[in-house]
Amino acid sequence: LIFEARGNLRHMADTQMAAEMREQPAVIAALVERRRQAAEALRGALPSPPAGTILIGRGSSDNAAIYGRYLIELVSGRPVVLAAPSLLTLYGAKVDYRGWLAVAVSQSGRTPEIATVLERLQEAGACGVALTSDAESPLGARADVVLELAAGEEKAVPATKTVTAELVLFALIASALGDAPWAEGDLERLPEAVAWVLADEDRAQAAAARLAGASGIACVARGLLYAAALETALKIKETALVLAEGYSGADFRHGPIAAATREVGVLAMLAPGPAYADTQELVALLRERGVQVTQAGPAADDELPLPGHVPEALAAIPAVVRGQQVAHALAQRLGLDPDAPAGLSKVTATT
Amino acid sequence: LIFEARGNLRHMADTQMAAEMREQPAVIAALVERRRQAAEALRGALPSPPAGTILIGRGSSDNAAIYGRYLIELVSGRPVVLAAPSLLTLYGAKVDYRGWLAVAVSQSGRTPEIATVLERLQEAGACGVALTSDAESPLGARADVVLELAAGEEKAVPATKTVTAELVLFALIASALGDAPWAEGDLERLPEAVAWVLADEDRAQAAAARLAGASGIACVARGLLYAAALETALKIKETALVLAEGYSGADFRHGPIAAATREVGVLAMLAPGPAYADTQELVALLRERGVQVTQAGPAADDELPLPGHVPEALAAIPAVVRGQQVAHALAQRLGLDPDAPAGLSKVTATT
Repeated sequence: LIFEARGNLRHMADTQMAAEMREQPAVIAALVERRRQAAEALRGALPSPPAGTILIGRGSSDNAAIYGRYLIELVSGRPVVLAAPSLLTLYGAKVDYRGWLAVAVSQSGRTPEIATVLERLQEAGACGVALTSDAESPLGARADVVLELAAGEEKAVPATKTVTAELVLFALIASALGDAPWAEGDLERLPEAVAWVLADEDRAQAAAARLAGASGIACVARGLLYAAALETALKIKETALVLAEGYSGADFRHGPIAAATREVGVLAMLAPGPAYADTQELVALLRERGVQVTQAGPAADDELPLPGHVPEALAAIPAVVRGQQVAHALAQRLGLDPDAPAGLSKVTATT
Repeated sequence: LIFEARGNLRHMADTQMAAEMREQPAVIAALVERRRQAAEALRGALPSPPAGTILIGRGSSDNAAIYGRYLIELVSGRPVVLAAPSLLTLYGAKVDYRGWLAVAVSQSGRTPEIATVLERLQEAGACGVALTSDAESPLGARADVVLELAAGEEKAVPATKTVTAELVLFALIASALGDAPWAEGDLERLPEAVAWVLADEDRAQAAAARLAGASGIACVARGLLYAAALETALKIKETALVLAEGYSGADFRHGPIAAATREVGVLAMLAPGPAYADTQELVALLRERGVQVTQAGPAADDELPLPGHVPEALAAIPAVVRGQQVAHALAQRLGLDPDAPAGLSKVTATT
């Protein structure tokens, strides 16, 4: 087993995806360092307080937006909407967004749909913020405020460091809008927490070995960690080509649990906080039924340890990195090249 | 083949789920007939126009809410939010919902979480509407306005007639809030359109035969039909225990398409309208790649015909019934009892 894990570790060094994953502590540190500038840029442009916030993204950027959806509603005390882009791009809906904050998320800034939706929302009265690597992109050029991901170029098709950058930027937006549920020091210790996860590759290999035979994988979490389950499922689909789905633990009980047979692997994610007991109870129920559960959490006997000192509201960030690790290990175990998934390209030109 | 289809048809008559599916034209007709009373009840209680609308549901009721999310934003011209219940039940978020309409959807009215969320939203200033079978349930008792599903008792665990009732009620809410994109006659012809789908059982059997060997099923649609893809996937998971997921066609291109191998079945749903070309293009791309696609739509050569005269904004209703038929046929083909899925009960007590 040790030999096998070493073999995979060596192999991991070779992929672009793994190299970009290892850049994450530095990317996060750079963003956290710039948090005051980000807050000033936002406060200078935003209605205060915004009447509500609308978020736009696809793929991994949509998962980052779902993290933002929970965090911003909690902190701002105003409704947060995930945009239904087709309403604006296909159906020409005229919706009143005066006094709203609109945050559009696109690594490249070059998905036409995302830029079009931001433009429509600005026309409808919203203040437009873009989270993107490229301030000169169509999306960046259109926004009232650009918060750059500052993650450098990302070459692997599965997004990793740009996703953690988006998550961190959502945390910074929440900080700018109100009293965020963490201390300054918690943000500053994030790079270290992510480095700790990255250094513990053996546990990801072991989890991948457990999951390799599954007919499908259900990733479950709840509340502030829900986005990490969605992103982990997407990463597994993209890199390991295994049917994986992310679920809120509560949604999972309302139907999908029926399809959680012994052939299906469940990856549950937990962080200390109000949602912990709910997910723990779901895991116990699944284990009673003979379903194979791999648990990512802060407990000593969790199969995939997560740093226990990270507050729940930031825990999605190390959890997403755990998920990347598992997806990468699973892809390699299945003989696939994580850098170039079948039928995907770096920029998806939905309109 | 004919013999086999007849055999399944006979068997279909025996299940509770099939019996309840057949009640749908009558349930829809009864609701459409009461549309003026529903509009009056809503207009009497609602802020006019509401500042926005927030929707709450789990499982099939959440899928109905997603239909409502598109329709109500389109018609009301104000933002529509799908609630993140844990924010209110677990994290105690204080969010300002003054002037908002809140619509909570629960067949039984007895999922504690849904009633709690509606109560919190009412405390936060929203006007609370319940869509439920039971006006005396905890949810019904709490709401400012109750719109009853009037579908009678539903005994099969997979919800069918109560889901179409919820969809119809969302259409009636949209009608009450503004100019809905259909004519009166379109609502009146809905029962007939659904009866037409129900009478064409052979095509559902043929689709189930195509899908029976798939390792998983992706249901895709976009815009106003998106909810039908989500509900079909859930119905397949619940009754046939096959890993099925619903996707917006645009989301599907941003990652999940990588996992659409030759082993996966894709069920695409289309209706005439602005989203048609987009889904059609995705289907063509998948077919080029050798992925097996079953298409539900208005074209003569679609594997699963949908009535072409139903406007796109109402097409989710017959499409959901097509999905129920396929799920039921697939379950029977796999030797399962659709009425009693493993590990599910009729009321799921999430909190």
